[in-house]
Amino acid sequence: MFSERIERLSGSLIREILAAAQRPEVISFAGGLPASTCLPPLDFPDVPPALAQYGTSEGEPELREQIAKDVARIGLSCDASQVLVLSGSQQALDLAAKLFVDPGTPVITEGPTYLAALQVFRLFGAAFHTVEQQDGQLPAATLQAAIADSKAKLAYLIPTFQNPSGACYSVETRQALARVLDEAHLPVIEDDPYRALSYDGDAPAPLVTHLKSAPWIYCGSFSKTLAPGLRIGYLIASKELMPHLLKLKQAVDLHSNRLGQWFIAQWLKSGDYPAHLNRLQQNYKVGRDAMQAALERHFSDLADWQVPQGGLFFWLTLKNKRDTRTFLKPALEQHNVAFMPGEAFYADPDTGIGHLRLNFSHATPERIEEGIARLAGLIRAG
Amino acid sequence: MFSERIERLSGSLIREILAAAQRPEVISFAGGLPASTCLPPLDFPDVPPALAQYGTSEGEPELREQIAKDVARIGLSCDASQVLVLSGSQQALDLAAKLFVDPGTPVITEGPTYLAALQVFRLFGAAFHTVEQQDGQLPAATLQAAIADSKAKLAYLIPTFQNPSGACYSVETRQALARVLDEAHLPVIEDDPYRALSYDGDAPAPLVTHLKSAPWIYCGSFSKTLAPGLRIGYLIASKELMPHLLKLKQAVDLHSNRLGQWFIAQWLKSGDYPAHLNRLQQNYKVGRDAMQAALERHFSDLADWQVPQGGLFFWLTLKNKRDTRTFLKPALEQHNVAFMPGEAFYADPDTGIGHLRLNFSHATPERIEEGIARLAGLIRAG
Repeated sequence: MFSERIERLSGSLIREILAAAQRPEVISFAGGLPASTCLPPLDFPDVPPALAQYGTSEGEPELREQIAKDVARIGLSCDASQVLVLSGSQQALDLAAKLFVDPGTPVITEGPTYLAALQVFRLFGAAFHTVEQQDGQLPAATLQAAIADSKAKLAYLIPTFQNPSGACYSVETRQALARVLDEAHLPVIEDDPYRALSYDGDAPAPLVTHLKSAPWIYCGSFSKTLAPGLRIGYLIASKELMPHLLKLKQAVDLHSNRLGQWFIAQWLKSGDYPAHLNRLQQNYKVGRDAMQAALERHFSDLADWQVPQGGLFFWLTLKNKRDTRTFLKPALEQHNVAFMPGEAFYADPDTGIGHLRLNFSHATPERIEEGIARLAGLIRAG
Repeated sequence: MFSERIERLSGSLIREILAAAQRPEVISFAGGLPASTCLPPLDFPDVPPALAQYGTSEGEPELREQIAKDVARIGLSCDASQVLVLSGSQQALDLAAKLFVDPGTPVITEGPTYLAALQVFRLFGAAFHTVEQQDGQLPAATLQAAIADSKAKLAYLIPTFQNPSGACYSVETRQALARVLDEAHLPVIEDDPYRALSYDGDAPAPLVTHLKSAPWIYCGSFSKTLAPGLRIGYLIASKELMPHLLKLKQAVDLHSNRLGQWFIAQWLKSGDYPAHLNRLQQNYKVGRDAMQAALERHFSDLADWQVPQGGLFFWLTLKNKRDTRTFLKPALEQHNVAFMPGEAFYADPDTGIGHLRLNFSHATPERIEEGIARLAGLIRAG
């Protein structure tokens, strides 16, 4: 009865874990939710009545202008006509998959990579080719070899505070990767939702700013900084891709909700936005530092990790590599602590045995200490 | 560089015509916009702060309950768990196409049918098989023969105040079509955005209420009654389809914007909603009657039509069948009047020569009279 792609339709492990982790007694390191206390109030005085009417598929002109201005600040120079407002930046993955992926199309992703990207590209039939990071960088030679081996048609990369690994590529790495992508003229999607959550100085400019000729899509989000519930994200694309992406957007939902677009535009225009981001960074940095301290106390003999300079996650590599999926049930049911098994972030989970992703933006420092202690106890005994 | 489906990606004629029709001197019968004066004010006092956070892919529990209650009123009995809130009911077409359509999959549609449905199903590779209406009804034998001939895997039907034809199937037609669909166990999508815009009494219960075993998706919208700009629609599906549709929804945009969902839920709960719908019906009925009078004055020798009992459109069939696409440019450029060529609503436009779709919800009665006179003059001279 169903299309053949439905055989490839996977549910999200995250969904199931998050449901289980909602019991109040559970200390959850599983999700990637922003702290609700850090989100601005949903004030909607004086909404322009015209916003009730249908809008344009491209997005509100004012918001597109504001986004173009905002990304100029991080070194990405573009025209507002290259900005497409989306119903969450997740939608960029659906549009990109439609644009590039047929059954069997070779797609390069990092290992590990964003779970939902695997889900979307797999649905459209992608054949994944994984490029492995080394010491938190992606060597350009690794990408080059993977392109040659796989005859890739698309690369999906998360160079800045990656979910899940936390890796942030240096300027030099970005330049070298851009050269490889240009040489191969390989379309690249740069997913960049965590950039503003930076705790030790600004992240280097996006990888796409170093491209000279390869087609590109840059994905940005307001879900980590303003209001995920509004479902407003965006993509910026090289000019030749825009007409296709616009038609695809139109076909899927006509346009994104205008009220959310208006709310975001007010924030981007407001003089309060930089201060808001600053508060967010200060707040999450406390969580990051609390988790680092707790990990040092309880995990130094169990795992290796880097302190993430941004984003929402620690990425642990167990010294004694065991499949962390086996810890999930006892963690949730007997120890009331939730984490995300690292295996889920690999196109082939069995190649990514022995990692845990731990979120630090949701629990208080006290609960972080307690939860990390519980988790360490479980793994030590396991 | 692109996927093979991009060869099938068409822009929407509507988009281009609407852009041209936005000059204030143009009298536009082209779009399907609700009258802005009929949309309720966008008041957002006391928005629950929790709505800023991520929500569930299914939709807000309160809205799902309200929708289940609301459709019980029209004879569709379902559980709230069968309701999936969408980013506009257009999104149901994307999810359904993903669920059912591979390249070459035979799909039955009415001729004419909704333009954007053709666009979405075509993108996924549908092979269209068109069933023709007779005197505003779809004979069950026609559907039965088409299923047998085409080996269809999916039927897409708009039984109530169809866009573009205005047709509304009788109870008997619905029952007979349901029997045919059940016999063939053919999944059916019933698209029903215009039901509330009913000017001469209530429409018969949805076709899906007569099904006994065929899988079904019922698509509902708030874009014609409350606020298209919020992009909130829904689907209701037979139980076996829900797990797949939910995962597909999750993959495309995680969930629909929560603020719009909250706004709609407040309206559905409010005692004012029936009165609002009543005002809407009264208002649009004035436009419908004005256009009918103008058509009688200017078009009785040029075309045949039925007075639509609901929806937003007149559907004209020229007595002297000429390709109405050839009138579009002179209408817009020399006569400042816009309409939608009927050919665009056929899977194969050349099989639908000689129709015009005229919207009556947007122009004032005076402008309707003037625009219809201009259009008649153009066609008479053409």
